[in-house]
Amino acid sequence: MNTDALPPSGALLTDFYQLTMLQAYFDRGMFAPAVFEFYVRELPPRRNFLVAAGLAQALDFLEGLRFEAAELEWLSHHGAFRPDFVDYLARLRFSGEVHAMPEGTVFFPNEPILRVSAPLPEAQLVESRLINLLHFQTLIASKAVRSVLAAPGRRLVDFGLRRAHGAEAGLLAARAAYLAGFDGTATVLAGARFGIPLYGTMAHSFVQAHDDEAAAFERFAHSLPQNAVLLLDTYDTEAAAEKVVRLAPRLRRAGIRVGGVRIDSGDLAAHARRVRDILDRGGLRDVTIFASSNLDEDQLARLLRDGSPIDGFGVGTRMDVSADAPYLDCAYKLQEYAGRARRKRSEGKASWPGRKQVWRRYDAAGMAAGDAVALEGEAQDGSALIEPVMRGGRRLRPDPPLQAARARLQEQLSRLPSALRSLDEARPYPVEISAGLKRLAQEFDAAAELDQSQNRNHRGESQA
Amino acid sequence: MNTDALPPSGALLTDFYQLTMLQAYFDRGMFAPAVFEFYVRELPPRRNFLVAAGLAQALDFLEGLRFEAAELEWLSHHGAFRPDFVDYLARLRFSGEVHAMPEGTVFFPNEPILRVSAPLPEAQLVESRLINLLHFQTLIASKAVRSVLAAPGRRLVDFGLRRAHGAEAGLLAARAAYLAGFDGTATVLAGARFGIPLYGTMAHSFVQAHDDEAAAFERFAHSLPQNAVLLLDTYDTEAAAEKVVRLAPRLRRAGIRVGGVRIDSGDLAAHARRVRDILDRGGLRDVTIFASSNLDEDQLARLLRDGSPIDGFGVGTRMDVSADAPYLDCAYKLQEYAGRARRKRSEGKASWPGRKQVWRRYDAAGMAAGDAVALEGEAQDGSALIEPVMRGGRRLRPDPPLQAARARLQEQLSRLPSALRSLDEARPYPVEISAGLKRLAQEFDAAAELDQSQNRNHRGESQA
Repeated sequence: MNTDALPPSGALLTDFYQLTMLQAYFDRGMFAPAVFEFYVRELPPRRNFLVAAGLAQALDFLEGLRFEAAELEWLSHHGAFRPDFVDYLARLRFSGEVHAMPEGTVFFPNEPILRVSAPLPEAQLVESRLINLLHFQTLIASKAVRSVLAAPGRRLVDFGLRRAHGAEAGLLAARAAYLAGFDGTATVLAGARFGIPLYGTMAHSFVQAHDDEAAAFERFAHSLPQNAVLLLDTYDTEAAAEKVVRLAPRLRRAGIRVGGVRIDSGDLAAHARRVRDILDRGGLRDVTIFASSNLDEDQLARLLRDGSPIDGFGVGTRMDVSADAPYLDCAYKLQEYAGRARRKRSEGKASWPGRKQVWRRYDAAGMAAGDAVALEGEAQDGSALIEPVMRGGRRLRPDPPLQAARARLQEQLSRLPSALRSLDEARPYPVEISAGLKRLAQEFDAAAELDQSQNRNHRGESQA
Repeated sequence: MNTDALPPSGALLTDFYQLTMLQAYFDRGMFAPAVFEFYVRELPPRRNFLVAAGLAQALDFLEGLRFEAAELEWLSHHGAFRPDFVDYLARLRFSGEVHAMPEGTVFFPNEPILRVSAPLPEAQLVESRLINLLHFQTLIASKAVRSVLAAPGRRLVDFGLRRAHGAEAGLLAARAAYLAGFDGTATVLAGARFGIPLYGTMAHSFVQAHDDEAAAFERFAHSLPQNAVLLLDTYDTEAAAEKVVRLAPRLRRAGIRVGGVRIDSGDLAAHARRVRDILDRGGLRDVTIFASSNLDEDQLARLLRDGSPIDGFGVGTRMDVSADAPYLDCAYKLQEYAGRARRKRSEGKASWPGRKQVWRRYDAAGMAAGDAVALEGEAQDGSALIEPVMRGGRRLRPDPPLQAARARLQEQLSRLPSALRSLDEARPYPVEISAGLKRLAQEFDAAAELDQSQNRNHRGESQA
């Protein structure tokens, strides 16, 4: 068969065990309602909070979930799946409910940001791709916001497509960075898809392809008459800045304005000071300086602490792969099945049972003072962060614009204790487990212990 | 317009500056042949070599490159692009040549693994996505091979989809891991697309959804009668192993064979020893033990050094994001335009000019003894690693099967000095720059110095 017909992010983009488990559920008619929650177990090093992102893509995935003809054909030839089960998959749609924190919400470990309530096979099947979508944008938004906090008032542009992990990573990293407060991206498709402002400068190859650097600058400026950003470091950064100064009057007479210059190698602080000086002496005070070159939030903070005259930054690879913490310890766990709470008790990976709500309390000054993870319906102080977003497999309302998620995050940041907004690790924000949740977990564990001791008696032996 | 019609990995998945530079090239008729090369500048920490991967996807991208109607429409409304240029883009196809190292080739810093020769705008436009494709699979194959070296003879399965960075990353990480010597993947689409063997066990949720763990095991085994792998650690690992022992006779009478068990938390070595003992005492010597839980090559090496009775490993997140080194310092640089060598001289990022070949010498025992990076056509000892793969925008031959790339890598590994096959950093493998290449770089630099001194005279000042 033609496997090119298989959609790259369709229903087969899942783990094999989801399908074998589904067949077992199908065989035994286990279609009762299940509740799964997605949460992060702990913060990576040097993160004081996380930013919820990726909900829009997760809901797209759930609404569009179906096995296409080519996928069903592949499954029926694979060998592990019986025809009646493949017929069931052909009819399968996501018919459940979703509750979630809106994108742009600040959250903490053990706080679910998404809950799926659906017949067990549906809720199970979607696990792999749901985690894949929520994990990545949350990871990147939580990384990108650190650059936003490190460089207030500076222009920040995502430059990371080329070394992002594949096509979707490049596209969605641009989205997550914009949600986190970046000004825009260089990734054209992200501009076209999500309305994110596009920025770009020029590459070294453009300069190299010309025999003369000044001629390269002039041609590029003519092609982008209002906003050309000229790249200075192909050969000699300061010499190139001098060329820009000599070129500017002629361009001005042609009605062309050089928007800025970019420095992409060497000691960025030193180059920026010298280039600023050359530009200023040459009457180009309004030409901005843009810096790039394997930057991250720590370097932004250092450059700005030193007073470097840099107006904007291209932040690429290290943000788009979240280089210092390239994954989150997250999970999508069954918390309830057929009306009964469920709990995984694996060592170091135990989960809190039941369906939950997260509450945030504010102090008199309006600053976030602590969260509580509680059972749904359990009375708590503060504002509830999780809301219904999907019912019967359809969104309850159109997604808020990306701008709204962006604004939500900025509002939440402004109410976050300032220590948490630092790049360094702060004292953890208090997240309390409610009395009701603790009680449910204890009840569950007591029942499990009883079950195990019965097992031991059954074996006629006792184990440590 | 409906931006959902924009293909997720189409021609707009590029950096904005590629399009503005293309417009400048178009304006000035700069269509002469350009040569770009893709290479890695330096090895990440604890890598002794890299594995070339991603060529098949890169060639797919080049053969399929075209702006679709929806993309052209978006471009013409953007504002930065003139109608005559958009018309040019509508006709644009990749018509060039590609030379490359076959997938599965071991390579080192400064060795190009792919060369594009094409009219300048074509060779320029493809930069962002070509890097995006080559970088990721090379990154993952170079990470995955370390698990293969650490765990010879053990079954290795990619488990990383859920925390890979998006859909394409999950799919292509499975491919790169298989190329590197993994036995298979859990990612169904990778099995369907690339013919990679699929493996899977069961999830904690399956056990949790049953009121009784033993009943969950029995049901799962019935649904996968020849190869069920039962997950032991949802509640108590050893207690679950005892349940498997008690269950096995009944399953055997029903013609069902338990293939293996999986341990996914706690002290894997200790659990594996106790579980092996329980299984052996219960007559289940042929039931294999499979381990997972945030594993990487270092943990595999440690577990096996300790003699843990583990037959196979699920390696996920840390491999699929290459957690200890989540990106490579790679570049795609212009080396020649209109018949003249070009060189970027940026501080710390200078490139070697001209079109190159990489040669590998072998000693009398057939072991790799050193590489040379030379100008194409410059006589060298050894075997040439770069070969023509595309001409006139079309592949010269069908891609070799993924199995062939996998075999090529194993052959190359067997000829690599053993220190390089260690997980620890070894003395660097010798890579020599040829006399011809050094001469060309000197000539280029001398001409550039001359040009700069003329500039300085022109400014009537002297700079340090």
